[in-house]
Amino acid sequence: MAAARILGSGPVLSRPVTFVTGNAKKLEEVRAILGQSIPFQSLKLDLPELQGEPEDISKEKARLAAKQVNGPVLVEDTCLCFNSLKGLPGPYIKWFLQKIGHEGLNNMLLAYEDKSAYALCVFSLALGPNEEPLTFLGQTPGKIVLPRGPNDFGWDPIFQPEGYDQTYAEMPKEEKNKISHRSRALALVKDHFAETGYVFKT
Amino acid sequence: MAAARILGSGPVLSRPVTFVTGNAKKLEEVRAILGQSIPFQSLKLDLPELQGEPEDISKEKARLAAKQVNGPVLVEDTCLCFNSLKGLPGPYIKWFLQKIGHEGLNNMLLAYEDKSAYALCVFSLALGPNEEPLTFLGQTPGKIVLPRGPNDFGWDPIFQPEGYDQTYAEMPKEEKNKISHRSRALALVKDHFAETGYVFKT
Repeated sequence: MAAARILGSGPVLSRPVTFVTGNAKKLEEVRAILGQSIPFQSLKLDLPELQGEPEDISKEKARLAAKQVNGPVLVEDTCLCFNSLKGLPGPYIKWFLQKIGHEGLNNMLLAYEDKSAYALCVFSLALGPNEEPLTFLGQTPGKIVLPRGPNDFGWDPIFQPEGYDQTYAEMPKEEKNKISHRSRALALVKDHFAETGYVFKT
Repeated sequence: MAAARILGSGPVLSRPVTFVTGNAKKLEEVRAILGQSIPFQSLKLDLPELQGEPEDISKEKARLAAKQVNGPVLVEDTCLCFNSLKGLPGPYIKWFLQKIGHEGLNNMLLAYEDKSAYALCVFSLALGPNEEPLTFLGQTPGKIVLPRGPNDFGWDPIFQPEGYDQTYAEMPKEEKNKISHRSRALALVKDHFAETGYVFKT
């Protein structure tokens, strides 16, 4: 029945939520966690990457995306934050990884005994072009180590989550997904959808 | 006579060039170097700061500014690039300085013998909202040192230009201006205006 798409008695959204990504696997993951009941579509948008604090960057991205899409959007950003560097490289981790690699990232902490870090995932949901975005932050504490494990996913080989002997890269995928910054942020997005009870008239 | 504003027989600009800055001193400096013959005005615009390569960041800023102003604009950006870190922190220096200070910036290089760096200034000139911006890069090579000199201007105390015993902060202002990344970029802007011979009908 058509009511399958009606989640509750909350705000009415006349369009599916556009998850901004060029990565089909990420959409799958979002669908797997959020369930089929929320209508999602994915779209690759060429959005500017901004400088600033992680939450501000994400909100601004959601605002720009909602304008382009003219409807509800969900955007995602990832940061790797070194505590000795007061949260940096943070949102700029992509450039540091690209230019100086795992070794360079370890070198940045040579001056410090404290190698602790946290992985941060920020999702922002904007219901429309004129709506203030909501942010959902997932965080996983850990430390920066010399690279261990398969080198096929970004900085996973140098991040060892707190309470584990393995790096993200060494962990079985489902084990990582239980504690990852990304799954924690997505869990908050899921809670929000469940609590708000959006009605999708699509 | 009115011809004072006519520089040559090049492209006609119907509006003065807007130099995007919130800093009155920077406008003065630009006026001092470029001369009074080019009509300039300054405007503080709330433009997004982008991530990326220094030249791309500057060009995109010029595009956005030219759209907002609907006329010719000049924008400026500064980077501090560590050679051992392949040019980083580069355009993100502002955040690194703010969060980890002079000591933290020195610490980032502890793992490396090579403390060399370069100060980079990028000006971009967009003649209008639909014109591809031109960029002018001024670069000054040097090295990163423990802070010396007055601590009233950004990272000047930790940057010692090649061939000098003093840091930017320790140098007399006019001495610094002779070799600074900023003055070198501005000299290129000046050459461009002289060579192109814009006609200002304002």
